[in-house]
Amino acid sequence: MLPIARQAPTVETIISAHAALRAQGPLVQCLTNVVSANFMANVLLAAGASPAMVDNPEEAAGFASIAGAVLVNLGTPTTAQVDGMRLAVQAAYDIGKPWVLDPIGAGALPWRGGVAAELLAFRPTVIRGNASEIIGLAGLGASHAKGFDSSNDPADAVDAAISLLQHASCVSASGPIDHVVGKVQDDKGDISHYLLRIAGGSALLPRVTASGCALGALVAAYAAATQDGFCAVAAAHVHFALAAEYAERQARGPGSFVPAFLDGLDLVDARLIRAKAQVEGTRL
Amino acid sequence: MLPIARQAPTVETIISAHAALRAQGPLVQCLTNVVSANFMANVLLAAGASPAMVDNPEEAAGFASIAGAVLVNLGTPTTAQVDGMRLAVQAAYDIGKPWVLDPIGAGALPWRGGVAAELLAFRPTVIRGNASEIIGLAGLGASHAKGFDSSNDPADAVDAAISLLQHASCVSASGPIDHVVGKVQDDKGDISHYLLRIAGGSALLPRVTASGCALGALVAAYAAATQDGFCAVAAAHVHFALAAEYAERQARGPGSFVPAFLDGLDLVDARLIRAKAQVEGTRL
Amino acid sequence: MLPIARQAPTVETIISAHAALRAQGPLVQCLTNVVSANFMANVLLAAGASPAMVDNPEEAAGFASIAGAVLVNLGTPTTAQVDGMRLAVQAAYDIGKPWVLDPIGAGALPWRGGVAAELLAFRPTVIRGNASEIIGLAGLGASHAKGFDSSNDPADAVDAAISLLQHASCVSASGPIDHVVGKVQDDKGDISHYLLRIAGGSALLPRVTASGCALGALVAAYAAATQDGFCAVAAAHVHFALAAEYAERQARGPGSFVPAFLDGLDLVDARLIRAKAQVEGTRL
Repeated sequence: MLPIARQAPTVETIISAHAALRAQGPLVQCLTNVVSANFMANVLLAAGASPAMVDNPEEAAGFASIAGAVLVNLGTPTTAQVDGMRLAVQAAYDIGKPWVLDPIGAGALPWRGGVAAELLAFRPTVIRGNASEIIGLAGLGASHAKGFDSSNDPADAVDAAISLLQHASCVSASGPIDHVVGKVQDDKGDISHYLLRIAGGSALLPRVTASGCALGALVAAYAAATQDGFCAVAAAHVHFALAAEYAERQARGPGSFVPAFLDGLDLVDARLIRAKAQVEGTRL
Repeated sequence: MLPIARQAPTVETIISAHAALRAQGPLVQCLTNVVSANFMANVLLAAGASPAMVDNPEEAAGFASIAGAVLVNLGTPTTAQVDGMRLAVQAAYDIGKPWVLDPIGAGALPWRGGVAAELLAFRPTVIRGNASEIIGLAGLGASHAKGFDSSNDPADAVDAAISLLQHASCVSASGPIDHVVGKVQDDKGDISHYLLRIAGGSALLPRVTASGCALGALVAAYAAATQDGFCAVAAAHVHFALAAEYAERQARGPGSFVPAFLDGLDLVDARLIRAKAQVEGTRL
Repeated sequence: MLPIARQAPTVETIISAHAALRAQGPLVQCLTNVVSANFMANVLLAAGASPAMVDNPEEAAGFASIAGAVLVNLGTPTTAQVDGMRLAVQAAYDIGKPWVLDPIGAGALPWRGGVAAELLAFRPTVIRGNASEIIGLAGLGASHAKGFDSSNDPADAVDAAISLLQHASCVSASGPIDHVVGKVQDDKGDISHYLLRIAGGSALLPRVTASGCALGALVAAYAAATQDGFCAVAAAHVHFALAAEYAERQARGPGSFVPAFLDGLDLVDARLIRAKAQVEGTRL
């Protein structure tokens, strides 16, 4: 477990997180679905991190001690990969490495729902999903997810996200306006909850498969670089939003958006974050 | 089993199918090969459908009842995935969901050939392959396939396709000119066979891996939207051909063709289909 | 085992190899990681070869007798895939088909390190890796690999590469300047070692995931076309370098580099190789 953040993220802490990511180039162990693997790796490389998709049970635990952070994504689980996930997050938990849970489909599919619930015991640093997944994981409502790309409005997932803070230090429901809830501990040790709303991005982003998955991996990269789960989520979501805005200006459609988005992840810098980040925080 | 079509597809029924796809955004369960997964998902999203790659035995049957259609592609089968395929198509058969079989390599590789033959008992709505795969699956001739991307002339696969109509309502052999055979039932209940030839497209399309696989998934999306396997094949093939023509005008080679093709799938509309579709039908 | 080369590669033998690749369009069986599968297949298609990702134990050996060459990449091994690898390379060894070993992570991860060591007994035609992987496989030094994308300077891997020539006819350590060592047998039967340094390429290439993996597959394609492992390595590395140079001129970043690189693989021809190849050979 990482320590609880001392302050809610701001544009300035996001800029510092970005500088740390670029300076460290953290290694992220990704146990992820087959749809996302290539795009996720390219997203990490373009953003300034280093991917390694080590997910077999023979190597998953050992590699967690080498990696800077671990990303577990439930998109296309197999029994062997789930064994790898258990071993990797157990290792991350034991040695205090940050790890991120992306509970794709956990609300809609009972088998992986059980896996997700089991993995919560190993205290993910961050839980990231779309609104319907966060609601589904929290068990706070029937998931009306039509597909894995669908989503309720993230504003509807805030209560579910808050309830999941019993397991994680930060929970994000991504969407047109990302809603992120996180814990902050003051000097006296008192813990309070904050809600961050992060706007921007592009309507083309959800038309690219695995864009949410790749965002989860970037959260893990930032968690490795900052050792602060709440700030990691904010920084990754802002980084994504700015890259998507760049890409939308270049793109003619969802296909040409993809290479432009990767170029955008590479181009984002402190100046752009300061000029364009749309982050609004509220104490709950 | 879907009911047999009442008429052979025409440009106007293809336009209606496209409108239905865009209106419904059908969810397609894809049990597919690792090479195709990302591209297939992006093709479905760009065209207006929604992908979900649920292929493990624990979840495959349950998800078939949520999805609008099921796509089974034999490109890189594993024993676990084949178990998932059996369960998914059994479920689709039991509840009358459309499903598409893409028998990659079935003629050349005995193990998966046996799997394909076994799956035929669950009555695919559509069988889609290149010419050598259709010939191989029908067992009508030695497959001279050099690789999975190679193909005989689709015209040579028409007899094989017709013989496969005992299992499916429509069989497509894709190639420079797609040859599609399907069943039509008239008001008296008599069944006749039609051959559709669909021209257009681009020579760059077969130079993109998994383009045929993604076409199979788009057929499944159209089958979900129309509940008419024959029309679904025609609409998906025309949609692909028009997007490929757009992409060829944008591209400098097989690499830049890919994002432009996805843009093209997004751009295709009723006006373009009416102006450019090259469909020629014959009663056999 | 292929016969040992009669001469070290030159620009003219690389041009001949390229012509052979284009004329034959060799079929390459790839047993590779999930991150690389799509990109690797598109690289082979763009360069002029034909991919088939047949890696299950049921089919791997049989397909090795159909394919022109076999590529084994240890990026994301599973127990079933490793069984497939054993069977495929045993078959390749038995029938004298060229095969390429890409020992990703073999130095850093003991389980796959054991697999790589075991596969060496089947005499790969070529071993291709980045410098840290070649050093790790040879066991000549601690691998300081941070991630799978990281690398020491290839010049530091030459001793390790030479020691691996006891298993293979050619060993390549890829990097900013690729260092390739290979065996040449003269008319009297005496064997000598050569070092080839291949310059060029682009700094954007290592920022694309699986670019090294795809290079290994292209080596296999050239080995199928030439039946000369040393020349195959030289030709594939030059082909890659020239395509990367083309792509860098088109690209705005690591994302737009990818489609341009595939276009470049398609565009490379004899004239460009003769004008731009940077190959320098030394007898050791």
